[in-house]
Amino acid sequence: MPSDMPEILRDRYTWMKAHTAEEEAPGYALEILSRDRKGLIADISQRVSSMGGDMWFVQSWIEHDDTSHLLIQVREDSPQEELISAISSVPSVSRVTVRPTYGSTYGKRVIVIGGGAQVASVASGAIAEADRHNIRGEGISVDTMAVIGEEKIASIVRAVGRLHRVGILVLAGAIMGGEITRAVRDLRHQYGIPVIALKMAGSVTKEVDLVVTDPLEAGVMAVMLISHIGQFNLLKIHRQEY
Amino acid sequence: MPSDMPEILRDRYTWMKAHTAEEEAPGYALEILSRDRKGLIADISQRVSSMGGDMWFVQSWIEHDDTSHLLIQVREDSPQEELISAISSVPSVSRVTVRPTYGSTYGKRVIVIGGGAQVASVASGAIAEADRHNIRGEGISVDTMAVIGEEKIASIVRAVGRLHRVGILVLAGAIMGGEITRAVRDLRHQYGIPVIALKMAGSVTKEVDLVVTDPLEAGVMAVMLISHIGQFNLLKIHRQEY
Repeated sequence: MPSDMPEILRDRYTWMKAHTAEEEAPGYALEILSRDRKGLIADISQRVSSMGGDMWFVQSWIEHDDTSHLLIQVREDSPQEELISAISSVPSVSRVTVRPTYGSTYGKRVIVIGGGAQVASVASGAIAEADRHNIRGEGISVDTMAVIGEEKIASIVRAVGRLHRVGILVLAGAIMGGEITRAVRDLRHQYGIPVIALKMAGSVTKEVDLVVTDPLEAGVMAVMLISHIGQFNLLKIHRQEY
Repeated sequence: MPSDMPEILRDRYTWMKAHTAEEEAPGYALEILSRDRKGLIADISQRVSSMGGDMWFVQSWIEHDDTSHLLIQVREDSPQEELISAISSVPSVSRVTVRPTYGSTYGKRVIVIGGGAQVASVASGAIAEADRHNIRGEGISVDTMAVIGEEKIASIVRAVGRLHRVGILVLAGAIMGGEITRAVRDLRHQYGIPVIALKMAGSVTKEVDLVVTDPLEAGVMAVMLISHIGQFNLLKIHRQEY
């Protein structure tokens, strides 16, 4: 076990490595459409818990036409028929539909952040490798953002801690340091999210879990490292450079 | 105005085209950490509305260690200090932190779905173009999933309707039809999400808003079409093939 790996990162990584995306997101989802109004989420969540449903994920946002769009995910043993009819009777709700969970649909996420040329290259490697894993029944998706500037990159790195289903972050750039390095430290120590960096100038490579020179390989490795099938394990190669 | 464009798609697209990602997601976010327990979301959302806060987005999920992780987004005029202290006093809540919204961080999303080789190519074009837009102050991110099989692709296409911040979907494959075509139809008619397809075999190209032969160009066009800066407008090139 690498001694300089934050405990939260080691625990979270070990747990993720041992579970499929579906195991991480058990149960089923309900998609709810409603006219938006104050107190809607409170009403729905109270109805769910009064019916014995165990809601562990909720996402809600408002569409361009002021429709409120909710997705809730509940544990397997939550009573489906009862929940649908209880939620349907909440004032202003217009539609309730059973859906698969995000986890079973999009799976674990590789996040790639940095400069366009290198982000595209890392993404190509990650997408090709995720394709191979997904053919074998895994669920791994690759999400990217090309950005410029220390402050902007740092704030986007910090926000990775507030995304769900994140498996690993890859930093794709030619120089990153300062505030970005502090953001990487916070992300690893507060949220337990592992970070790969391309070999690059700046202090960030001192703070990450793995440094990889070739961007395609960085993308491939990122996918292998979060796969529950692959034998490749971050605990064994922590702080290495390839 | 293209006559065969669903009204919901035309309205949603026109609205998105006219707004920045930040305008689409006004206000600020609060990140909340808590021990997970039943009724937590109901308690928080009731506290927010009793303090006069207007919560329009909530996301909550459970971490590997049974910490409950919530992000709520409220409108600008919601009283920040009062909300923080009201939520902090909800039983089992351990931390409340002010954060930027997802919209101001990650912006609008281009979603790319299909086979690995083509997904990677479309993503490269989209990432390079998003980089240029983001340098000019926009927020556009590119999210991908490489998958195989008619049923699987169809279910992932359908699920795009349940993602927030989606600007446009690009289908990157060599043949798509059957259930996928029906899923594209549902996505466009029920959720108003525009769809680009690569020029390919199968019926899907009959159902989409735009057909593009070169995958790099498909990615570039996808970004230009959802930009609030770019003059490129889907209403003017609807049903074209390039």
